[in-house]
This record gives sequence, C-alpha cells and structure tokens, in this order.
Amino acid sequence: MSERVVIVGADAAGMAAAAQARRLRTASELEIVVFERGHFTSYSACGIPYWVGGDVADRDDLIARTPEEHRAREIDLRLRTEVREIDVPGRRVRTHDLETGGESWTDYDKLVLATGASPSRPPLPGVDAAGVHGVQTLDDGQALIDTLDSTPGRLAVVVGAGYIGVEMSEALINRGYQVTMINRGAEPMSTLDPDMGVLIGKAMRGLGIQVVGNAEVTAIRTDARGRVRAAATADAEYPADVVVLGLGVRPATELARAAGLPLGASGGLLTDLAMRVRGHENIWAGGDCVEVLDLVSGAQRHIPLGTHANKHGQIIGAGVGGDYATFPGVVGTAVSKVCDLEVARTGLREKDARAAGLQYVTVVIESTSRAGYFPGAAPMTVKMLAERRSGRLLGVQIVGREGAAKRIDIAAVALTARMTVEQLTALDLGYAPPFSPVWDPVLVAARKAVSAVRKDAIPIP
Amino acid sequence: MSERVVIVGADAAGMAAAAQARRLRTASELEIVVFERGHFTSYSACGIPYWVGGDVADRDDLIARTPEEHRAREIDLRLRTEVREIDVPGRRVRTHDLETGGESWTDYDKLVLATGASPSRPPLPGVDAAGVHGVQTLDDGQALIDTLDSTPGRLAVVVGAGYIGVEMSEALINRGYQVTMINRGAEPMSTLDPDMGVLIGKAMRGLGIQVVGNAEVTAIRTDARGRVRAAATADAEYPADVVVLGLGVRPATELARAAGLPLGASGGLLTDLAMRVRGHENIWAGGDCVEVLDLVSGAQRHIPLGTHANKHGQIIGAGVGGDYATFPGVVGTAVSKVCDLEVARTGLREKDARAAGLQYVTVVIESTSRAGYFPGAAPMTVKMLAERRSGRLLGVQIVGREGAAKRIDIAAVALTARMTVEQLTALDLGYAPPFSPVWDPVLVAARKAVSAVRKDAIPIP
Repeated sequence: MSERVVIVGADAAGMAAAAQARRLRTASELEIVVFERGHFTSYSACGIPYWVGGDVADRDDLIARTPEEHRAREIDLRLRTEVREIDVPGRRVRTHDLETGGESWTDYDKLVLATGASPSRPPLPGVDAAGVHGVQTLDDGQALIDTLDSTPGRLAVVVGAGYIGVEMSEALINRGYQVTMINRGAEPMSTLDPDMGVLIGKAMRGLGIQVVGNAEVTAIRTDARGRVRAAATADAEYPADVVVLGLGVRPATELARAAGLPLGASGGLLTDLAMRVRGHENIWAGGDCVEVLDLVSGAQRHIPLGTHANKHGQIIGAGVGGDYATFPGVVGTAVSKVCDLEVARTGLREKDARAAGLQYVTVVIESTSRAGYFPGAAPMTVKMLAERRSGRLLGVQIVGREGAAKRIDIAAVALTARMTVEQLTALDLGYAPPFSPVWDPVLVAARKAVSAVRKDAIPIP
Repeated sequence: MSERVVIVGADAAGMAAAAQARRLRTASELEIVVFERGHFTSYSACGIPYWVGGDVADRDDLIARTPEEHRAREIDLRLRTEVREIDVPGRRVRTHDLETGGESWTDYDKLVLATGASPSRPPLPGVDAAGVHGVQTLDDGQALIDTLDSTPGRLAVVVGAGYIGVEMSEALINRGYQVTMINRGAEPMSTLDPDMGVLIGKAMRGLGIQVVGNAEVTAIRTDARGRVRAAATADAEYPADVVVLGLGVRPATELARAAGLPLGASGGLLTDLAMRVRGHENIWAGGDCVEVLDLVSGAQRHIPLGTHANKHGQIIGAGVGGDYATFPGVVGTAVSKVCDLEVARTGLREKDARAAGLQYVTVVIESTSRAGYFPGAAPMTVKMLAERRSGRLLGVQIVGREGAAKRIDIAAVALTARMTVEQLTALDLGYAPPFSPVWDPVLVAARKAVSAVRKDAIPIP
C-alpha cells in the first residue's frame, strides 16, 4: 500500500514539500526519499551576503532545519547524492554518490523536482581562477569566506549589479575591502527602472563603492600562480584580489531537459497551478527551477526567491500528500537593503509593461517615511505605473531610508486584487505621525497617478 | 454667476475641501468662506502627544498650512468666528465673532460641515478644575503645556487608555512625570481584543507607568485654590498635579442637530458616498463629525482620524468644485506607538464581528520582524479573525517592536479586496532577511487561520 515520493533537492522547495507531505501522510503510507548534491538542507541563500558581511555570525544561523531534524521526521535524506538521470516512463531516477562514486536506480511513484538555480558563469577567460566566486549556495559562501580570510589583498571586484551584486558589494565594504562593482546596464539594479536605479548608484558611491556602469567584464586576469589579479573590460582593467560573480542565476534544469520535461523560455520548468509539471500527473516542480505566472502581465517568468520556493514546497507537499492547494502566481515583489537604502519593487517596470502590450502612465513623487514634523522622518521616492484608460495599477518602485521596503506590500496586495489607482487613493492605511504622513507616500503617488490617467485620456473626436 | 460655499471648521476636512475646490474653481467662479472658532488651521491633532512629550519641539511644526497660506489662495478665512445656527431652508448661517461679540448672517449656495469632534468630558465633580486638560485641539495642547511648565509637582493621572490615553501617558513619562493611567476596561486600548491589549499594559508597566484597570474616575478632588489634587475612583484616590482626559471624542454636531440634519447612532452626520449630507444636495460633511461606512461589517461607525478627514476633504472639494469623487468607506485601520511597541489593528475585533452577526475563527501567532537569524529581529504577535466557512478575512491585530505598525496595511488592502485567508497565504509580499522572515508574520497567521477554518467546518450529516 505504501507509495514512494522521490524529491530532488533539499533546500526550501524540496524540504518544505517533504515536511508538508509528512504532516499529511505517515511513514507507512508514504516513503519520502530526498537526494541532495550538497552538504546542507533548508538554508537561507538570501542570507549569504549578510553572513559574508558579518551581520550574521555563523553559517549555521542560516540553516532553518538540519539533516538530522529532517531525518527525525522520517524523511530519508541522502546528502552528497546527485541525481543524474530521470527515467520518466520507468518512474525511476539514477543517482551518483559523490563520496563513493557509486551509481544506482531508485523507483518512484511520485517525483518532485526542486533542483534550484545555477549562477550564471559567463565563459570568460580566467573565470575558473582561484579567487573568483559565485555566492549561490552555502558551499559557495563558505568558499568565498575562506578566500577572504586567507587573502591579504583588499581589492574586490563585483561583477553584476542586481540584488546579489549590490548586497555583496556592501558586504565586502563591511569587511574592509575597496569594492568596484561592474555593471552592464547604465544604473545598478535593473529590476528597477533606470530613473530609480540612479538613486541606488548614488547611495553606493556615497559608501565609497566604485560603480562602473555600461561596462562588461571580458576576461579575468590571473597571476603566475593562477590566482585572480584583475577583471578586464573592453576599456579598462580593475585590479582584484577577489572577484564575486553576481550575474544572476538560471534555472538548474539540465536533468529535466534531458528527461524531456517541458521548459519555458527562461529554461524553467513549466507547471500547472498545483505545481505539477505540465503533462505529468505524478511529477511536481517548484522553487528556483520553475517559471511562475506573472499575474500582472500574464507572462511566465523565472523569479528565483526563497519566499516563492517555500510556498511552492507547501503546495507540492499538499498535492503529494493527497490534499489540494494551488499557487496562483506572483506579482513580482522584491525588497532589498542597499547601503542605507531600502529598495522595493512590485509589478511591472516600464519595459515589462511595453513587452506585455500595455500602455501606461508613470508618476514619481517624493514624500517622507513619517509625518514631516516627526523626528527621523526620512525621504522616500515612489514611482507608480498605471494602465492608460483603465487606471489599473501596474507597478510600484520605492526607494527610501526607512519604511520603504515593506510599504511595497500595499501595492503587492493591490496588484493581486487588480485595483485601479483610483481605488488605491481610498485605501484605509495605517496612519500615525511616527509611521506615516497623513497621506501615505503610496497614496500620494496614487493620487498623482489618477491625475495622470485623467490627463492622458484623449476624448474621442 | 459666482457661487459661494461656506465651510464650517478649518482643520483637515474643511481646509482640504477648500483647497481642492479652489484648484477646480477660480475666485470669480466660486467664493470660498471658511469660519473657524479657534486660532489655527490645518494642524495635526494626532501630533499633540508628541509635542507635549517633547519629540516635536514647536507647535508650529504641527501646522500644515497657516491662515496666511490659505488666504494667499483666495480663501476667505475667518478665525475666532463661531457658526451658531444653520438656516437650511434659507441657505444661510449665523456667525458669532468671538473677539467682538458681533453676530451676522452669511448666505451660501453650498455648505460644508467640518466641525470635528469634542472630547468626552464626563460630568464629574471637579472636572473643570485648574490642571484638568483635554488634548483635542492645539489650543488644548498649549494650555496643557502651560500647566506642565508652571506646575512644580510631578504626579500625573491620565483618564482613559485609548490611543490618546496611552500616547499621553508616554508623553508625560518623557517629561519626567510619575504617571497613573486609569482605565474602565480590564486592559488598555479597547480598540484591540483584550488578549492583545494585555501586551500593551505589560509594556506600559515596564516603562514605569501605573496602569489601573477596571476602574472609573468618579470625581476630581481639588485643593483650596481650586486646583486639581487627585483623581478619585470608587476604591482609591490617585494624587495628581495634572489630570489629562483621554476619554475619546464625540462628533461635534450640535449645530447640525439643531438644523435638523440626519445623525447616526454615534451622533455623527450621515452622508452619501459623495460625502453629501443625506437628503441635502448642497450640504456636505466630512472629518470627525461624520459617520463612515465600515466595509467589513456593513455598519456605520464614528472613526475620528486625520487620514479620513483629509480624504473626506478631497472628496468634498471635488463635489463642491463640480468634479466627481466618492469615499467608499473604511476598514478600521489604526496604528500607534506605545512605549517601545508598535500597535496596529484593522477590521473587526471579536466583539465587532459578533455584533455584525458574523461567526469567526481566531488565531494568534508569534513571529519576528526580520529573518530569525538577522540582527535586530524583534518578536511580533499577530492575531487574525476569519469568517467561519467562507474563510473571509475579518480582522488583524499586530503588536511588535518594529515593523508591526505598517504591516497592518497588508491586511487593510486585503480587507478592502474582501480576500479570504486562503488567498492571503499566496500573497507575494516583500521578503529579504533585514525586513521579514521568509514567511511574513501576516502569512504565518493566514496559514494558521486556513487550518482553523478547515477544522471548524462541520460536515453536513
């Protein structure tokens, strides 16, 4: 009577699925086998920059649940074991023991793919040199910290200026490095529109970080011992004792691709709303290896974030355990701390809106985090996109010094509910002088957006 | 061709209406006359406790716009002028000049009532003694500060434990007073359920405030010179050099009542969605003198808050100026800083839900403001109410040390969109270790509420 589920990957999505399935089914009803290539389970990859920067003292603090804790719940967890092949018709996976080299096949009734994402590692000359590091996994983070501890030099180059790039730049500054951040785009954080990204660049320069925009690293220069000594662009060479690659990640779906499972344009697995791989009733996928539905644009997107991975795991665990739950999609919310700034975005940027065929108006307003007269009131910039004619909210970006990050949640919920900016202006948001001006900055932006939508309306001749 | 609008009351609702109407209509199209009994315009009454406590240095900091600034926009503002009678059929008001004692009639085409609220002043023996203060207006605040500055004693009694009571208690502690807060209810802040209010009482006691619950002040004792010397309850006498009344406010609608305008159960004016007084096409009302629709319970409520007053003013100004806008209602959001706590609520308390005929489940969870491993992560308690069977969100209360207050906005928007707790669990909220655990505390509560709704469902036999 017992079934077996095989789960590939033991981080957020995989282990949340395992835990939820175990809550629903006893070990005699459902055998849960998890294969994990690395040494760790259920850790916060998002916390790695703070560990490197010293805010978080200990690697173990980032581990939400250890292998032993999972095993205590009758989850058969096999670390350092890589799944190398999925035999979909045969319902079995081939595994490779990274310690012994042994190979074997394991049958499954149900399969969960939670293989995560791999850092983009451009095929640059020298990219595999000692001192060049990604920061995707705890193993990566440990390797970087070992390098930082053993390298006397204090020059760092960070390649890429997305969340990882800016967070790692700040972490390295905190460790006493001179940091150069090299960015393909004109402004850091291309998850924001450039007019908001410029605020990030300014803050980073204020912290002493050298921000190089419109530049692409073309080679890593190494010394005689094969260690990194510089990062080169077409125009310049930036000396470096350590290089951190923060170029974003791709879905780690080589295994799925080889098995013939359906992938989207980004390479992420395609699933239905119950997180089952499309066309496969007994295979689920979640976390950084899947594409998700963007509820605002209607497009499929790859958005690797721990919070989605955890939700996916819950949904998958429910499905595997015989319960019912769905993941309706995302609106694209992301928040980050960059130097002394809080940065937040949700919904569509201008270019996303254009790509989705949407026409829009934009407004930008300046307000404050608290009542203007209240001590500590800090400036806050809010950008808002609303659809032409309908006035539907399309996206919000916020940069400020306090209270900016989580204020984005107002817009995230409003996007989910498909509210118009006119509806936003009437929202009953929390107001007290220590926490908000009497018109919350989001409402100030909404009011201006209402005007912009009205002004934009062209009377039919 | 010119019309005249008469506005009664020059604080948030009245002056926002005046300013918005002026944006839409020139002085030759619309004459705007505002009568105000007091000395000030457009000030933040919510800021008074912070001014008294010393966080805000100067009274003028609380004034958003001075009489001169309003007059510069061609608004005919007449301070220290009290409207004593409205002649609705004759479309005119009788005014009394508080400086000269002169009386006169002013005709109007349109009338706006923004008369605000009056502090509840119980008919206690001694309540008019020197040293007994309300804190509703800037004039009140100034009188209190004058007393504090001139009184050598350092014993204060605060009567009432709502927002004003707790904020004033903290303000007086900050000024070096020994403070006793006397409260009719068992726990402070009856805007929360008692199980959450208990957290407030604990924090206040931790700050050295003597919190006396289940007690009612029955008399103010005075000395030979007629100054306050104690506040008496049935059981005890609390020595006091100053007494602050924080018993809440009632709509100031004596004028409207005398004119036969429709009032609700709380005494607040009843309006339609465009903020026109019911049955009167040329009379608007807004701010602390009206009742508003509670979108969650469907009931009319009196919720005096500056943020609503400002919105009402905008809507009224649009209507007066010939534009169109509506105020759909509120969900009952309120946030406050109490000692080192952030306190927030929205939607219905248990007793509100019962009064509305709603059956519900409740859950309470403990979480943290940031990822548990991130430095500064502070505890946060979230209580959530969901409707039986439907699972519709009914209310949320949050108490925490940081990030608690504005997190309520998630629930405020979700209530407005009439989301279920199941829908809440899928919300794409901002996540990064410095700002939230991977499951935001509101989502943790929503997940538990989903379980509670399911467990509560009784199968039909």
